[in-house]
Amino acid sequence: MHKNCAIVVVAVTLFSCSFTVSAQNSKSDVPSAEQVLRRQQEGWNRHDLEAFMSGYWNSPDLTFFSGAEKTSGWESTLERYRKKYQSEGREMGRLEFSDLNIQELAPDAAFVRGAWRLKMTDGKSPHGLFTLIFRKFPDGWKIVHDHTSAADH
Amino acid sequence: MHKNCAIVVVAVTLFSCSFTVSAQNSKSDVPSAEQVLRRQQEGWNRHDLEAFMSGYWNSPDLTFFSGAEKTSGWESTLERYRKKYQSEGREMGRLEFSDLNIQELAPDAAFVRGAWRLKMTDGKSPHGLFTLIFRKFPDGWKIVHDHTSAADH
Repeated sequence: MHKNCAIVVVAVTLFSCSFTVSAQNSKSDVPSAEQVLRRQQEGWNRHDLEAFMSGYWNSPDLTFFSGAEKTSGWESTLERYRKKYQSEGREMGRLEFSDLNIQELAPDAAFVRGAWRLKMTDGKSPHGLFTLIFRKFPDGWKIVHDHTSAADH
Repeated sequence: MHKNCAIVVVAVTLFSCSFTVSAQNSKSDVPSAEQVLRRQQEGWNRHDLEAFMSGYWNSPDLTFFSGAEKTSGWESTLERYRKKYQSEGREMGRLEFSDLNIQELAPDAAFVRGAWRLKMTDGKSPHGLFTLIFRKFPDGWKIVHDHTSAADH
């Protein structure tokens, strides 16, 4: 009987503790994913692809989806960006994120919906949407999966 | 001193309990998202769009991203599918999901990466990738956000 009571007390404590932890995290952690995105945008706009890439999980398990093309791993994702935006005749343009919606799923997981637009020197303006999965690592929030799509036209 | 010891004991119990809960959830919950997808595929292939749509969160807050087009709400998502696959001259085709990767983020949240392909009667085969965010509700796992993209060609 005493043993059962102790278990109930522990369970109640556990429940109230986990709520406190969540509340603290929603205040301190969610802006961190936003900071990562702000730093990515700033990095891109000074054409510093390494700074942009620091927002991604540096792992072979990072995934990047675009159209029907799946890229796996941090190195391959960097290579994809280099080919698409830094090879001959290509330019990075000016990147703008908008309509950001950051939703926490757990103290160490969040997903982000948003829109992207590039302004190119020739006046073109490719744009589209993205969905990002963020996980919290010892060195901060990182994108572990990126699904990006562009307007057809 | 005694009080501090008790806090340590509660913390240790909390830690071991939360691991047990996670392990139980990964066994019982993750296949549910897979079941939802299997039912969606079966529903689509008997041209039952309502059955397909039952995998989505029936809420105005459901979001569906495709290309640069954002659809908000369950009703609008159903309407988009109707226009794209059931209006005059359109067909639903035969749907196949593949390369499913279901990753749990919390006991009530998961994300799914996968590929889709439609086989049309004219021999065409549109295909692409998807990212889904699932949440667990009292009536089961539902898709709260869908980002789908297609091959350019």
